[in-house]
Amino acid sequence: MNREEVIKLKDEAKNHLVNELLPFWTSRMTDTKNGGFLTHFDKDGKDTGEDEKSLIAQTRCLYTLASAHRAGYGDGKLAEMARHGADFLINKMWDREYEGFYWMMDRKGDVKIDKKIIYGQSFAIYSLSEYTLATGDRRGIEYAEKVFDLIQKYCADTMYGGYWEMFERDWVLRGPGSSGGDRKTLDVHMHLMEAFTTLYECTGKDVHRRKLLEVIEILQKRINHPEYRTGIPQFYKDWSIAPQIKFEIIWGWDRFTGEGKKVNVTDNTCFGHNAEFAWLLNHALQILKIDNGIYRQDFRTIFDHVVRNGIDMEFGGVFVEGPHSGGVSDMEKEFWQQAEVLTALLDAFIMFKNINYWDAYKNVHRFVFDKMINKGVGEWYPLMTREGVPIWKHMGHSWKINYHTVRSMVLSIKRMDRIISGL
Amino acid sequence: MNREEVIKLKDEAKNHLVNELLPFWTSRMTDTKNGGFLTHFDKDGKDTGEDEKSLIAQTRCLYTLASAHRAGYGDGKLAEMARHGADFLINKMWDREYEGFYWMMDRKGDVKIDKKIIYGQSFAIYSLSEYTLATGDRRGIEYAEKVFDLIQKYCADTMYGGYWEMFERDWVLRGPGSSGGDRKTLDVHMHLMEAFTTLYECTGKDVHRRKLLEVIEILQKRINHPEYRTGIPQFYKDWSIAPQIKFEIIWGWDRFTGEGKKVNVTDNTCFGHNAEFAWLLNHALQILKIDNGIYRQDFRTIFDHVVRNGIDMEFGGVFVEGPHSGGVSDMEKEFWQQAEVLTALLDAFIMFKNINYWDAYKNVHRFVFDKMINKGVGEWYPLMTREGVPIWKHMGHSWKINYHTVRSMVLSIKRMDRIISGL
Repeated sequence: MNREEVIKLKDEAKNHLVNELLPFWTSRMTDTKNGGFLTHFDKDGKDTGEDEKSLIAQTRCLYTLASAHRAGYGDGKLAEMARHGADFLINKMWDREYEGFYWMMDRKGDVKIDKKIIYGQSFAIYSLSEYTLATGDRRGIEYAEKVFDLIQKYCADTMYGGYWEMFERDWVLRGPGSSGGDRKTLDVHMHLMEAFTTLYECTGKDVHRRKLLEVIEILQKRINHPEYRTGIPQFYKDWSIAPQIKFEIIWGWDRFTGEGKKVNVTDNTCFGHNAEFAWLLNHALQILKIDNGIYRQDFRTIFDHVVRNGIDMEFGGVFVEGPHSGGVSDMEKEFWQQAEVLTALLDAFIMFKNINYWDAYKNVHRFVFDKMINKGVGEWYPLMTREGVPIWKHMGHSWKINYHTVRSMVLSIKRMDRIISGL
Repeated sequence: MNREEVIKLKDEAKNHLVNELLPFWTSRMTDTKNGGFLTHFDKDGKDTGEDEKSLIAQTRCLYTLASAHRAGYGDGKLAEMARHGADFLINKMWDREYEGFYWMMDRKGDVKIDKKIIYGQSFAIYSLSEYTLATGDRRGIEYAEKVFDLIQKYCADTMYGGYWEMFERDWVLRGPGSSGGDRKTLDVHMHLMEAFTTLYECTGKDVHRRKLLEVIEILQKRINHPEYRTGIPQFYKDWSIAPQIKFEIIWGWDRFTGEGKKVNVTDNTCFGHNAEFAWLLNHALQILKIDNGIYRQDFRTIFDHVVRNGIDMEFGGVFVEGPHSGGVSDMEKEFWQQAEVLTALLDAFIMFKNINYWDAYKNVHRFVFDKMINKGVGEWYPLMTREGVPIWKHMGHSWKINYHTVRSMVLSIKRMDRIISGL
């Protein structure tokens, strides 16, 4: 590798972020009529009119704007838009009777689904903490801490550790099976680590640090495969592995079979999650001021698993998932997995100075820039065939928004700047 | 056994409660000058002047008064005294900055030890819930719920389950070893079960029920010996057994050797704790409306362990402790163990209709009434030799008060009434 090569990819990323990705959103996301953000756009970026404002899309938009502002983009305009989003979140989506944020509103701000879903609450903590860090508006951290306190009170499993994830509006645990009340997942615990990291970064409070350290230990000792360090998606309360099922309340379109079951229900790991876990853990350790050397072997194992099994050497990009011991079982390409693997592979290269990681980064970078970005529109296609032909084409939806794409560009640019300065 | 025999013992208990025990306290405990309760009395019941008001003595006095009032004693006078105690607790012992109750005050109500010790917080929940149940004064449950919320936020170990127990004033976990920050104990978890039971009885809230069920499972699966069902006193965070050590902040005078270690540090179980656990669990199941048959075998095992190993067939009464597999290692007689075993053995007899339990009850009853009660004064000696000669003689202290003695009389009378009505 040489300096020019890195500079070229970095400039490509920066041009995409500043001239395509951010403008795609800033030009159309503000709901001037009802407050908050519009989040449903078709392949041409046209508002589809779907009458939904989901907790995750609203909070992720808030995160995107706040974090991009904090990273130095937008000349203050992104902070203004973030405030507009925080207003809607706090004034419309907060349940004043039972506390916590509702799961789904309509555009006007009336409740459509009143359940308390920890995946969504986790993004509320993450985005509201980032919002205060970015703007100084204390309302963000005030509500982030309220949600943290609610999660400790209602969701911690004081018998087996970890957190329950699916609740009724009044914080009564939901039923078992597809209601999700008897499951614990990689997804939720990883995003709690992400959320508690930024919460702790904002408050410096001991209790936030302690619960962050505990959730890291849960991920390391209960959730990640003991040998392959790959994430296991679903568990029962006692951390025995549960067959992967589809929940009633979802935040993505995992491709399940007709009965809501995966073909290989107990031996699936997702490359994007594993890569995301690794860089989020690395980031958490940095915020905690803990040397990442304590998990050096785990980082190596996870990064190598992604590179060996998850990278498509023929068509480029990152596969969906495969067995823990290696191989691939789903060769399609999801947008968010590309985004998370980009950030992770740059961390891998910085950590180990191994050229294989840089080569893998280039592979995924090229797949994204050559095939996944919807040229002339500015956002990424959500799902493609292995070869890179779009399967789904919408640009925005309750669970396909700007958080993965913008974050991966902001963070990849930072990491490439660091690499460049060292060459 | 015959009806007259039970009536006779019940009348003896009732006479002691109404004419000796309650008057001992009601005649001298109210601190009319500084509020709250005086708690330090010598063998003659004379105020020793010790300048301490401990969280556990204040809350236990509150519990005693409230529960005796609820059981129909005192003609309203006990409720009035309870309100006097609740005033001091809430107005003087509550930390308005960091929340939670201080551990130790002086008589005037200034802070002597500002640590947040969960053993004490647990008694705050227990007594304040009982106070609201007894009097209807909503301040009790308001503060009980505040403490419950604090414990969930600051003390739950979300990695290994269970609760951390020793905190600084600002809820930062204390250090390891004698500071207690790395230990989990039978004592605290059993008293949290006791506290959450009365909290749930008062509120009927789902989250209180859920955390009560979880702490029962912790006691059953982590703390009680898998075979003998006896309580193991101390653990490390991951529930591996820890050698029993003395903590800096104590709530009793366990007889440790000079270096603060027990002789047999990893194989000690306390008969009084085991008996208390059994009847508290039975009571919790009753409040939860769960058939106690689900733990029938465990109840049998625990009661039999107490009767076979803990009852002194020669001199009467209950020994201090012994190895889990059976036998006795400390033959002295502690007041609180007698009290808890009385209640438990009546539960055992009601549950199993086995005359051995009644005979064991009679044994302990006679030891208490013939030897342990300080005749003409009204309270019990705290510690006696095996033969029944007083070793310690004080009637009241920060950790020797009316909660065990009054409660055992109130509850034994209730149980004997039930037995009598069935004969």
